[in-house]
Amino acid sequence: MFTDEYFMKMAYQEATYVLEKDEVPVGCIVVHQNRIIARGYNLTETLNDVTAHAEMQAITAAAQSLGGKYLIDCTLYVTLEPCVMCAGALAWAQISKVVFGARDVHRGYQSKGLALHPKTEVIGGIMEEACSALIKDFFKSKR
Amino acid sequence: MFTDEYFMKMAYQEATYVLEKDEVPVGCIVVHQNRIIARGYNLTETLNDVTAHAEMQAITAAAQSLGGKYLIDCTLYVTLEPCVMCAGALAWAQISKVVFGARDVHRGYQSKGLALHPKTEVIGGIMEEACSALIKDFFKSKR
Repeated sequence: MFTDEYFMKMAYQEATYVLEKDEVPVGCIVVHQNRIIARGYNLTETLNDVTAHAEMQAITAAAQSLGGKYLIDCTLYVTLEPCVMCAGALAWAQISKVVFGARDVHRGYQSKGLALHPKTEVIGGIMEEACSALIKDFFKSKR
Repeated sequence: MFTDEYFMKMAYQEATYVLEKDEVPVGCIVVHQNRIIARGYNLTETLNDVTAHAEMQAITAAAQSLGGKYLIDCTLYVTLEPCVMCAGALAWAQISKVVFGARDVHRGYQSKGLALHPKTEVIGGIMEEACSALIKDFFKSKR
């Protein structure tokens, strides 16, 4: 029951919440022992803050929930491949697993030749089509 | 009067504030038209949050001060070369200039082959010895 697809759907739902806010729709959740301990969506426009990516907010919230800054035995599900900033934060957090939906060939950390923490398992492309369509449709509507 | 050394001394002073808090002593300020619009120091231990680097807090505060998320005509002075996370945030912010003190050969963004925004001027090594000694002394005291 608790598959990567199952949790990615919840990250996807987070992303849809900001469609009305004129934000690039990216959502994520952090799961610990099959329990969601943090949620986040992109709020850079609303908060006037480039650091307000979905992942950054969820990393902070997850650490508060756990009472420690290392996200051991945690999985972050995010609809878009993390950027350099978020990849750096995930590396500091030594998170156990990262699952992302759409690839970001221009801004994603992998395109910059970066790696996460050696302990971190990474899976990309879960619900890739749906996650990618969400963002493409957003930018299409902006033209 | 308003030299890079002048402002780096203020970033250095920010770093010294956390020496008592058992934090890695890193401090920074953001300057806009020779006026300090944001200050920050590392609070990752105190806040239990890997994202609470000096730069991240100062980027958020500077954007609030300016009323916009892009840090145009701003200079960030930081006592240590930014890490991957902070470099990613500085790139998103399109900050005009970054001045750092000590180099970080293991964790600094330059060692990962990253660059900031093409518009960003970078100067390293200002007050390098003093900034480096601050951190080395901290780690020495922890042994």
